Amino acid sequence: MTATPDARTATATPTSIPRAGRTPSAASPESAPRAGARVDVTALGRLLDGRWGDQRRRARDLALDPDLQHVEDLSRTEHRERVLRQLHLLVERGDVLRGFPAELGGAGDPGGNLAGFEELFLLDPSLQIKVGVQWGLFGSAVLQLGTAEHHQRLLPGIMQLDVPGCFAMTEIGHGSDVASIGTTATYDPATEEFVVHTPVTAARKEYIGNAAAHGRAAVVFAQLVTQGVNHGVHALYVPIREEAEDGTWRLCAGVGSADDGAKGGLNGVDNGRLWFDQVRVPRENLLNRYGDVAADGTYHSPIESPGRRFFTMLATLVQGRVSLAGAAVNASKVALAVAVRYGVQRRQFTGAGDEGEVTLLDYQQHQRRLFPLLARTYAATFAHEELLERFDDIFSGAHDDDDSRQDLETLAAAMKPASTWLALEALQEAREACGGAGYMAENRLVGLRADFDVYATFEGDNTVLLQLVGKRLLTDYGQGMAKIDIAGAARYVASRAADMTLHRTPLRRAAQSVRDSGSMARSAGHLRSTAAQRELLEDRVETMVAEIAGALRAVRNASPAEAAAEFNAHQHELIEAAAAHADLLQWEAFTAALARVRDEGTREVLTTLRDLYALTTIERNLAWYLVNGRISAQRARAVTSYVNRLLPRLRPHAVALVDAFGYRPEHLRVPIAGDGETQRQEEARAHVRRRRASGEEPVSAKVLHANARRAGGAVTTG
Amino acid sequence: MTATPDARTATATPTSIPRAGRTPSAASPESAPRAGARVDVTALGRLLDGRWGDQRRRARDLALDPDLQHVEDLSRTEHRERVLRQLHLLVERGDVLRGFPAELGGAGDPGGNLAGFEELFLLDPSLQIKVGVQWGLFGSAVLQLGTAEHHQRLLPGIMQLDVPGCFAMTEIGHGSDVASIGTTATYDPATEEFVVHTPVTAARKEYIGNAAAHGRAAVVFAQLVTQGVNHGVHALYVPIREEAEDGTWRLCAGVGSADDGAKGGLNGVDNGRLWFDQVRVPRENLLNRYGDVAADGTYHSPIESPGRRFFTMLATLVQGRVSLAGAAVNASKVALAVAVRYGVQRRQFTGAGDEGEVTLLDYQQHQRRLFPLLARTYAATFAHEELLERFDDIFSGAHDDDDSRQDLETLAAAMKPASTWLALEALQEAREACGGAGYMAENRLVGLRADFDVYATFEGDNTVLLQLVGKRLLTDYGQGMAKIDIAGAARYVASRAADMTLHRTPLRRAAQSVRDSGSMARSAGHLRSTAAQRELLEDRVETMVAEIAGALRAVRNASPAEAAAEFNAHQHELIEAAAAHADLLQWEAFTAALARVRDEGTREVLTTLRDLYALTTIERNLAWYLVNGRISAQRARAVTSYVNRLLPRLRPHAVALVDAFGYRPEHLRVPIAGDGETQRQEEARAHVRRRRASGEEPVSAKVLHANARRAGGAVTTG
Repeated sequence: MTATPDARTATATPTSIPRAGRTPSAASPESAPRAGARVDVTALGRLLDGRWGDQRRRARDLALDPDLQHVEDLSRTEHRERVLRQLHLLVERGDVLRGFPAELGGAGDPGGNLAGFEELFLLDPSLQIKVGVQWGLFGSAVLQLGTAEHHQRLLPGIMQLDVPGCFAMTEIGHGSDVASIGTTATYDPATEEFVVHTPVTAARKEYIGNAAAHGRAAVVFAQLVTQGVNHGVHALYVPIREEAEDGTWRLCAGVGSADDGAKGGLNGVDNGRLWFDQVRVPRENLLNRYGDVAADGTYHSPIESPGRRFFTMLATLVQGRVSLAGAAVNASKVALAVAVRYGVQRRQFTGAGDEGEVTLLDYQQHQRRLFPLLARTYAATFAHEELLERFDDIFSGAHDDDDSRQDLETLAAAMKPASTWLALEALQEAREACGGAGYMAENRLVGLRADFDVYATFEGDNTVLLQLVGKRLLTDYGQGMAKIDIAGAARYVASRAADMTLHRTPLRRAAQSVRDSGSMARSAGHLRSTAAQRELLEDRVETMVAEIAGALRAVRNASPAEAAAEFNAHQHELIEAAAAHADLLQWEAFTAALARVRDEGTREVLTTLRDLYALTTIERNLAWYLVNGRISAQRARAVTSYVNRLLPRLRPHAVALVDAFGYRPEHLRVPIAGDGETQRQEEARAHVRRRRASGEEPVSAKVLHANARRAGGAVTTG
Repeated sequence: MTATPDARTATATPTSIPRAGRTPSAASPESAPRAGARVDVTALGRLLDGRWGDQRRRARDLALDPDLQHVEDLSRTEHRERVLRQLHLLVERGDVLRGFPAELGGAGDPGGNLAGFEELFLLDPSLQIKVGVQWGLFGSAVLQLGTAEHHQRLLPGIMQLDVPGCFAMTEIGHGSDVASIGTTATYDPATEEFVVHTPVTAARKEYIGNAAAHGRAAVVFAQLVTQGVNHGVHALYVPIREEAEDGTWRLCAGVGSADDGAKGGLNGVDNGRLWFDQVRVPRENLLNRYGDVAADGTYHSPIESPGRRFFTMLATLVQGRVSLAGAAVNASKVALAVAVRYGVQRRQFTGAGDEGEVTLLDYQQHQRRLFPLLARTYAATFAHEELLERFDDIFSGAHDDDDSRQDLETLAAAMKPASTWLALEALQEAREACGGAGYMAENRLVGLRADFDVYATFEGDNTVLLQLVGKRLLTDYGQGMAKIDIAGAARYVASRAADMTLHRTPLRRAAQSVRDSGSMARSAGHLRSTAAQRELLEDRVETMVAEIAGALRAVRNASPAEAAAEFNAHQHELIEAAAAHADLLQWEAFTAALARVRDEGTREVLTTLRDLYALTTIERNLAWYLVNGRISAQRARAVTSYVNRLLPRLRPHAVALVDAFGYRPEHLRVPIAGDGETQRQEEARAHVRRRRASGEEPVSAKVLHANARRAGGAVTTG
């Protein structure tokens, strides 16, 4: 399928006729797609779907099954039961188990598993999250933190959903700071059991999926205590509900639970609290891959350092973060697919001259609202594919080592905030861009937004994750410093000093102004070069990190309290630097993807979109570039005017660009993304034509009034 | 009540002790409140509540009545019925009718009426909107567009809720562009009736409150046709449901209705569609204040120009826009009250040195997220009070003229987007700042956000409103140009030209750099002066408008299509200019309010907050100031570092600043705004103390490991 520019209006648009005989070298110097460029929607779709495209497309097609779709107007209880039934259906279909090892009945395909999972929100985000809880968290914890005996004994029931379960990590008192949780698992050598206990209210497990109703067991994270020593957080398998004689499932003795009730979204998931009053489980229920207790109570671990052990254990659970980021990217695609398809139909306010009303997407502001988000969604898609490749590399065992796991952890920590906030922004902008129609539940934008809201704070609070990325950037920077030899360090310091001097005087800017003194077009031309974009985006991250490192180095020998205060005084900057790092990663992934596009027209359009990504990212941080002398005032003016020039160039390709996401109308089930608006307009136009032809159409008093005024008639007021 | 800085920690904070003998002139040169400054919460609350404080407080106290509160987990039908019953209760209480004339049983108090209305979201936003539909839109339309006969005949039933009704303006095909609606009301002199008709699907009334279930009549906006002439949009009173013999209410013959079903929020309002198949109403049902049809079909209007008539009619309905803006400001207050009260209790991650965990609101990033929103909420509150004063001036009849009405219209069009987007931002930031707890429905942030979402697009789409403001700014600018004499014009052009030259060279910046070459503190000191802030905020609006005007003047003689294209090419800038105008208005209102603060400590704290408003507004647009040579690079650096210095200075007053909003815990009914978190922490600390005292607390393996490493022990890994 090759889409002409905006299929709906192609016949009326002369630019939709492809011109032959143009070569890439003849392309406009301002990165516009040629007038006749077309997007090859099928090929672009394949590029976007990436390595696990088959899994993605198969998962999307699940949304065609009415039994797997979300239905409105269920009570919370009905919604929860429906989602549980849907999980059983998914077990029958099989794909949700791809991530488990082949020997256990999975497919040993961690990447493909996540790729498919990332589409499930299309059915219902509650379904997606319940799948994530069951197999991505509960099952994964048993797989990753347990050993062969656990796999044999526990995974079959988990995989087949005979044992719906909980991932009981978060507590009321400790969300982000998992190391400080208060639940204890104290070993009793007399009975060879662990005693799982909730000592205080703050240590109750909170927001736990499957806890309120369906969970029969839980992986409980607790401080492991044996022989009077607390070995830190470990995970144990704890049954929480048992079947009574009447066939109902009741809480086990000592286990408490409360329903979290209504939430902002995801109400098909039965979140709740869990607490334990001296609940005993056999020693074998400790998931003991990274730490074990012998019958006599002796503790053993393959990782000596308690800190490293803790982070290693948590790192095995990174797939939640990775896959939610991917789901969020896909939610952005859906938001933009809806808003663009509606925006190319909907008309409002009469334009110049003729009687036709202007299509929403022809308004500059409408393009400004949607196209930069479209560019970010493309960038996030390509960046996510790279993240998923790395994840698969490690968890398939192809390239698994400590450094790779740490890199993956950092990459996921950078991508998850970028993608989840993008989704919220795209869903909200799309909802507002669709006006009142956007607020109707049937058009799905509000429901998706409500469900995805929590993606910003669960599986790692976005702000906490960005701080983690920032700290890693600082560490890497510090190591870079440490490795420089003395002469190198001196050079480095000298160059930094010179740099700082330049920032403090207008000299560097003055110099650039001279260079830029040519036309606006030349400034803009510079900004569309890949090398210039890379330099600007890289430079910002590096400089911000270097400045923070410099400030922190100055208090290296201060008291811990002073050092902490100085760190806190730079927290906002550090988080900004981490976000800038994520921007850079996305830009790099987008740029790398351009090289993989064979079709010339598609590449031209995508290059324009990539430029829009770069320029709007630079525009958002323009003050930084100006203050730090990286961009002259004149070039800065070119940024905004160039962004405004790119928008109408992308306009003819907007529909093709969202079609390539692969969400067909039957996947979306969104009325305003269909052609109802176009049909109503045609009906209205036909009505006026008929009335005019029959002479029934009344004369407009406005026209009469204007004519009278022109004729100098007896118009006294107005 | 005088709040010490952060009441919860006051005893531990030496800065909470007020120092005597300091005079305002001795205040820090950097606008910090003195170390011992206190906020007089009661007095500040009265200032915030403004002229109609009694009505506001009375309306807030309605939320103490369980019958008027929102309850979770109702079906949509139950929710709608509950809200309808609540409306009847409000009629008994009486305040919702304050806006109607005293002779009809109201209080002739339009300002007080809106002030009370603006608090009703606290009960349930669905209740607020249903009140708005019934009395603010349906009733108001009869009052404002009808005449004495209509008032006598129709208003008693509307006021007493015997006739729940609809405001049937918006159509599927035309939301923002009301002038283009398709419903017709054609006069038939034979029967002296109007025939109300929906000619095409696009002309069906859509998103109409009370249409799906409760409405018994509607004010229907339609193109008025008589004697073959269309006189434009007029309003008619049309019964839509009648009581059947069995006591149920059924649609009248010829009236169609459909339920809009589930929405993103406000599900206690029965929105729906309405359409008419040749429905006849008596001639007297035309609301004829601005246009009437005589028995023979002759049309009369006190306003000759159809365009002016249309805008005059619409302008009478401005109160919806005004009051939703006010409600949105109050929703921001609630969001921040919740997030701040939780933020001063909740702790996460251990700080430097001691074992205590750090309070969320002591993190710089947490302050960065919440305090600028707090400053904007204060600014919006004061700006809204001015808007409400103007509204009351006109609608009470005190100062009612065409110019005042136009100014009010523009002011409301600027404030409504600013306030409603602020509310969405504040609610979302608060929700994320409260983590998982913020996502629980019981903590209300998610529900309020879902309900307020539509405030951004109904009663005037925010983007369309800002464009309206932008056009008014352009018109005023053009009139200013027209009034300048020739010599003046020459001077103007010369100064503009010089200005432009400065923009294109670094000279002006260089000059400012020299001026700024002193310390960072001097730059910051400059930015805290009221005059400097005013100049920067005013200058931006004026310069942006002038630039757009210049570009449009250049195409004055172009074809309509070219002129429209040029206008569209500046649409984004124009909307930015309008938003900058709103920023300025808010800053001015905040600044004016400072002069009304008698208490010195309160004034110091509020001045700091006002400075934060100004500086974060400037920071958000810093690139513009740099590119246009208004701020040097050095001063620009001072902006961000000064913002970061203001945050900790406001920290001790954060609780007082939200307490002054007047939303007590029993108004909010939000668990996390209570002291549960503090109690849980105390319980946990007491538990650890007890265990330590009894020797039961296990030793930390982490500590043992660290000690072993320090002792050079046999640690082999990590």
